[in-house]
This record gives sequence, C-alpha cells and structure tokens, in this order.
Amino acid sequence: MKINNPVDISTIEKEAKKDFFDRHTPFIHCDSNAKRGEKFKVKVKLGNEYKHPDDFDHYISTVELWDNNRLLAKSDYFAGTLANEPNHLEVDFYIVATKTLKLTATAYCTKHGLWHSEEVIVEITE
Amino acid sequence: MKINNPVDISTIEKEAKKDFFDRHTPFIHCDSNAKRGEKFKVKVKLGNEYKHPDDFDHYISTVELWDNNRLLAKSDYFAGTLANEPNHLEVDFYIVATKTLKLTATAYCTKHGLWHSEEVIVEITE
Amino acid sequence: MKINNPVDISTIEKEAKKDFFDRHTPFIHCDSNAKRGEKFKVKVKLGNEYKHPDDFDHYISTVELWDNNRLLAKSDYFAGTLANEPNHLEVDFYIVATKTLKLTATAYCTKHGLWHSEEVIVEITE
Amino acid sequence: MKINNPVDISTIEKEAKKDFFDRHTPFIHCDSNAKRGEKFKVKVKLGNEYKHPDDFDHYISTVELWDNNRLLAKSDYFAGTLANEPNHLEVDFYIVATKTLKLTATAYCTKHGLWHSEEVIVEITE
Repeated sequence: MKINNPVDISTIEKEAKKDFFDRHTPFIHCDSNAKRGEKFKVKVKLGNEYKHPDDFDHYISTVELWDNNRLLAKSDYFAGTLANEPNHLEVDFYIVATKTLKLTATAYCTKHGLWHSEEVIVEITE
Repeated sequence: MKINNPVDISTIEKEAKKDFFDRHTPFIHCDSNAKRGEKFKVKVKLGNEYKHPDDFDHYISTVELWDNNRLLAKSDYFAGTLANEPNHLEVDFYIVATKTLKLTATAYCTKHGLWHSEEVIVEITE
Repeated sequence: MKINNPVDISTIEKEAKKDFFDRHTPFIHCDSNAKRGEKFKVKVKLGNEYKHPDDFDHYISTVELWDNNRLLAKSDYFAGTLANEPNHLEVDFYIVATKTLKLTATAYCTKHGLWHSEEVIVEITE
Repeated sequence: MKINNPVDISTIEKEAKKDFFDRHTPFIHCDSNAKRGEKFKVKVKLGNEYKHPDDFDHYISTVELWDNNRLLAKSDYFAGTLANEPNHLEVDFYIVATKTLKLTATAYCTKHGLWHSEEVIVEITE
C-alpha cells in the first residue's frame, strides 16, 4: 500500500493528468492561527479545480485529518452521498489545539487508492 | 444494544439529568430546504446547553448522519480531539439530495452508549 | 433511523421473505463461556441459509460487535471484498472479558439499512 | 503523516527498541494460496513477541487490510476491547479473491501513529 503525495498541477501539461491528480487530492482550508483551547474549524475538500465521480464503483469513501502522526478525526462516505454526480467532497471538522498543529489530510478513492494533502501549519495564539 | 431517544429536557427537573440527556444528544442544524442537486451543509452538534467530557475513558467517538434508513456519512473521533476539555463536539457534512430528506443523527459515547437525534425534514426545491 | 430486529424465519412462509430476513441478519458464533482475562474469539456471520449480494450498489458495509451498550469493535467492507458474488460475510473479533458478556452484533446493508442480531450471553469462568 | 515500515527486530540490539517495533507491527497470517472465488481467511495480529498496551491513552484503534492499493476491510477498537491488559490484538477477515493478492496490513496506535506490515503474496489456485 502506498500513499500518493500531492503534486503541483501547474507543472503538469496534460489536462487528463491535471484532472486525475487534482480531483484526488485533499486540500485543507483553515485559518493559519488557532486560539488556544478554542474550537477551530478545519475544512477538508477534495480537488480545487476538478470534481471527483460519485459512482457506485468509484467514489471517495474516507477522509482523515491528522496532526503530524496523530489521527484527529476520520469520516466515511458512500456512493450516493453526493447523489452520484461528480463533486468536491468536503467535510468540516472542529478540533481544539493547545500547541502548533501540523495538519495533513488523507482521502481514499475506491479505485485509485490513498492520497495525501500538503501539510498546513497552524500556530496557536492566546 | 439499545438507542437512547431524544428527550425534551425542559420536562426534566433535576439539573444533573438535564445535563446527562442534553450533552449526549446529537442536534442537527441545517436549512429546511435544499436545492436539488446542490451541495447542502448539515451540521451535527452534541448538546445545546451542556458540554460533554473529552476524557480518555469518556468521550464521543462517533457521529453518524442518516437519511431515513440510509447512512449518508459517519465520523470518528478520539479522546483529545477536543483537547480533553468538555465541549460540544461538532462536524459539518456536505451532502447532495434529489428528494425529501428525513435526517437523523446518532452519537456514540464510550461510557453511555448510542444516542439518537430528533428527525429533521428537508424539502427539495428546484 | 430504525434497527431491524432478528426474526425466526421458520415462522415465515414465503421463500423470498425468509431469504430477505436471513441474509441481512448477523449471527454470533462463539463459545458460551470465556476464561477471565483470556482472548475470546467471537465470529459474526451474515445469514445462516441465504447469501447476501456483494454488488456495488448493494452490499454489507459494516459489522459491529456490542457488549450490552458498549461497542467492542466495528469493521467496514467494500463492494468487492467478497469478489462481487453473493456470500456470507464474516469476521472474527478477539476480545477479553472480565464479566458476563451480553453480545449483540449489528450489520448495515447499503440498500436495506441496519440489522440487529439475537443477544448471546457468555459467562466468565476462572 | 508518515507510515512506519516493518523492521527485522533481530537486527535491533536494545530490548526496549525490539519491543517498540514488534508490538506495533501488524503481521499477516494466512495460507500462501487461495482458491479462486472461495472465502479466504486472513488473520492480522499485532506483534510476534511483544504485547501492546490496551490503556485508555494508549491502544491500537484501527487495523486495515489492503490488497496492493485497494482497501479490503478495516476495523476499529477501543481501549478496553482487550480488558485494558497488554495483548496481541487480532482480527480475522474473510475475503474472496480472483487474482494474485498482494496483502498488507496497517495498524494505528493512538500514541505512536501508523504502522505497516510486510507484504504477503497469495497466489490463486483453481
């Protein structure tokens, strides 16, 4: 089992390949600072530009949120959660931090395996 | 295994019992209408008034979102996701609907078992 | 969301209905006694007589094992885990008990919802 | 997030380090051949020689079974599934294969992150 690492799709020429990489990649959207001890929203969304299918034999079934090597939360979906039309699967997790976060997300596609996001650093403020 | 059904805590007299019921109950927060085929945000949040512990031996480990008897999404947490302080665990799921939704949520507490939300009807608009 | 309770299929006349109930019901197979503090095997198997499909739009995706209101273990599957042919999905969990177990299992079918097993009592011996 | 790869502990000198690596590593136990289209048992067991704690703040919470880059099954546990005593967590999955399997397992420890097994090849016979 291997994890596919994120790729800068502006460096890819072929449209189909840009699509393939982008639609499988989980992107983390959150503020760059979190208040110590307060709930902090972290959105994980698949794809910036290209939508992923939600077909019975090809869909995103799992999204996980990690802080370095610690799993904070995970979520599972089914073919049909997005009404079987291509879309950007997304979820908002709410976590509480007391020290610098090194967030990454993973996403699992039932046809193309496990994908890793870029790391996002979140500093803690008082 | 049994599921605890939601209770109107205004009918409960003892503070400790209000607390017990409220903090374990998942509440669904969403619009009452969803546009057909468009992403629709559904927040599930534990407790309206009382916070649930996030202790190693006592925390909310799972939140699920159902449409009638169909599971749309589920999510898992760990002791520490909320920094081991009492809080209202929450998650925003994004789903796409094409017909009336009968949403319910469940939450699992590692000490007090499985809890059910009220049902929320969401009508579909064009 | 509701849980379907187990039914004695010998009381059902129509073959299709026997099939429907049996193939969705999780059955617990284990010894009736467990040694205190020793690993104890609990098999959960779907259906005694009738196999459940493993189709992309219709499969058993989750099996959980409960001791009374405490979740001991859960497991998730995909369409194709059983090579897309009808079968009796099964899993062996290994748990350790220190007092009488009241085991139940649940199974989730992506088309027909959540199903409950009979309860199985396991006494603890020294 | 990174995955810890398996290590040959006979090459490690310090007992504590042998223990650390062995107790976190999932080992796959199964036959080297599977009959095409028939149910095939795959045991995943943590540690060959050293037991892992089952403490509230330190336990094995997830075991997954992969065929190359395809997830076949996953399972979740709680602190207490093994009665809070050190043990070798184990689970038997039953899968059906129609072509050569390249099985790997992963295990997640709530304190020490994600661990990968050796790959096990299973040939298919008629």
